[in-house]
Amino acid sequence: MTKPILVKNTKEMMRNLDFPECIKLADLGCSSGQNTFMVMSDIVNTINTLCEESNKKPPEIDCCLNDLSGNDFNTTFKFMIFFKDMLTSKIPCFVSGVPGSFYSRLFTRKSLHFIHSNYSLHYLSKVPDRLEKNKMSVYITGSSPISEHKAYLNQFQTDFTTFLRMRSEEMVCNGCMVLTLLGRKTHVDPLYRDCCHYWTLLPQSLSDLVFEGLVSASKVKSFNLPFYDPNEEEMREIIRNEGSFMIKDLETHVFDLGHSNEDYSLQSDRAKAGEKEANCIRAVVETMLVAHFGDAINIDTLFEKYAHHVSQHASCKNKTSVSLVVSLIRN
Amino acid sequence: MTKPILVKNTKEMMRNLDFPECIKLADLGCSSGQNTFMVMSDIVNTINTLCEESNKKPPEIDCCLNDLSGNDFNTTFKFMIFFKDMLTSKIPCFVSGVPGSFYSRLFTRKSLHFIHSNYSLHYLSKVPDRLEKNKMSVYITGSSPISEHKAYLNQFQTDFTTFLRMRSEEMVCNGCMVLTLLGRKTHVDPLYRDCCHYWTLLPQSLSDLVFEGLVSASKVKSFNLPFYDPNEEEMREIIRNEGSFMIKDLETHVFDLGHSNEDYSLQSDRAKAGEKEANCIRAVVETMLVAHFGDAINIDTLFEKYAHHVSQHASCKNKTSVSLVVSLIRN
Repeated sequence: MTKPILVKNTKEMMRNLDFPECIKLADLGCSSGQNTFMVMSDIVNTINTLCEESNKKPPEIDCCLNDLSGNDFNTTFKFMIFFKDMLTSKIPCFVSGVPGSFYSRLFTRKSLHFIHSNYSLHYLSKVPDRLEKNKMSVYITGSSPISEHKAYLNQFQTDFTTFLRMRSEEMVCNGCMVLTLLGRKTHVDPLYRDCCHYWTLLPQSLSDLVFEGLVSASKVKSFNLPFYDPNEEEMREIIRNEGSFMIKDLETHVFDLGHSNEDYSLQSDRAKAGEKEANCIRAVVETMLVAHFGDAINIDTLFEKYAHHVSQHASCKNKTSVSLVVSLIRN
Repeated sequence: MTKPILVKNTKEMMRNLDFPECIKLADLGCSSGQNTFMVMSDIVNTINTLCEESNKKPPEIDCCLNDLSGNDFNTTFKFMIFFKDMLTSKIPCFVSGVPGSFYSRLFTRKSLHFIHSNYSLHYLSKVPDRLEKNKMSVYITGSSPISEHKAYLNQFQTDFTTFLRMRSEEMVCNGCMVLTLLGRKTHVDPLYRDCCHYWTLLPQSLSDLVFEGLVSASKVKSFNLPFYDPNEEEMREIIRNEGSFMIKDLETHVFDLGHSNEDYSLQSDRAKAGEKEANCIRAVVETMLVAHFGDAINIDTLFEKYAHHVSQHASCKNKTSVSLVVSLIRN
């Protein structure tokens, strides 16, 4: 989904910067594993092909992989041996791991040419302050007071503005960013979420555990996700107000975890869709659940409940979640 | 021991490069833990003090920590929080981990200003080819044939030349390297090693295990260390022949693991010295022993033997091991 926009922007960056001798790329929020190398190899191969077509010497490339310092960089580095195999030429690439929050400075000034970030920027630097505690939700729901929605939006505005300011210091003029994050459809007020949103089904699954006496209600009530899914307009406004970047592309794509357009007349298919989404959401949220609940929760049981709830909603057509893909040029 | 030479060369590098806006430092063979941050903080604090004294704006600093991709970078990154405390000012420092062998290119061309490496360059890229196998040593000994000595020296010449060539491509003109490695005294032929050299005592300890039936002789005979301890003259010759660097300092310091000048009239003191050196050498060689012997060896037992052998030699004055400290300027 992101690849065409990544390829197009990589080429334009190279042309705008007149084919520099060295290029510094960054993946912000790379997580652990080999996914980061798949995107990096797409960018490197695009640069190489463009240089061949344009009869230019390919640059040397710094590939910087960033995530929080608690991330498992060791595992990521073990996949480096496969990276060379993904490259279509022997273009010199140098991999490094950069531990730290992307809501702070990570690189020296004016050093970066190209940044991408996949499904990380919807994470806030923290849960907003002063949320009400007497509820069983983990995020904004249809019954959340308007003040709660504002608290989440404010935190996102603060964090994303910080992100843009930090990157504006680190990037060269005409450098490029391609950012993909979870968002919501423009016309949807988050107070009126769809019934089958993952952050609606997660607290329902937590409530099941409370009902069965497997976890305390008070523990669930104090759990909130440091998350915000902006709409297109909110993104545009923050970028415009911060002022360092120009929007080149801003696309929304359906985010359905790959099962919303299938036929769910069979119970077994619905169960499969439930398991698939449960695994996906578990990968995203497990660390945060463990940090909050520790041994007080059985994660396997929780996601069995979750899978069941998903299967009940398999045919819902009222999805509000989207992937936002935005490309930005440093002024 | 290295600090004065490190401080002096850091200052000269800053002056020679006319106080750049950004500085890229590298620790090659950083291992895991917090030692790397101690040396990095010495360099950063020196830069900061010099800038204050010279009324210059301090630079932003890239601190690159390199080791093989199997190194435990996760642990090192956890110590980052202490790094800020070691710094005397709020000079902007950005830490990254760079996985890979320093016998290959690790950084983009002409990007590095200052390199240091502590006790890593005596490790060869591999055990020399065609060593004789019918022996119980792990390295060159007094009874090794001259061909074996030559094989080790050749491998060191190849590896250290490669190291210099790779770094010469990565460093800016007038950039500086401070390298500390294990060496031997200039007048000592490695064929006539001292009786209490750590690579003499290690095979003795391995032989004890063979004698007690705890490991097979053939397994011990096939174990060789990818190691060479050059003398000053060998170092000078390789640097001169490679041609990219000028030697500024070349110092030799006694390497005695901190116990050769103590009084060992008491058995308990000798035992303590034995344990101390055993821990030290174990830290250096354990990974290699495990890689070769796997479960076929009990490391605890091996280093109990080792500690015993050291205690028997505690009063030896005939040490041939030295630390070589060399500083180089990129021509």
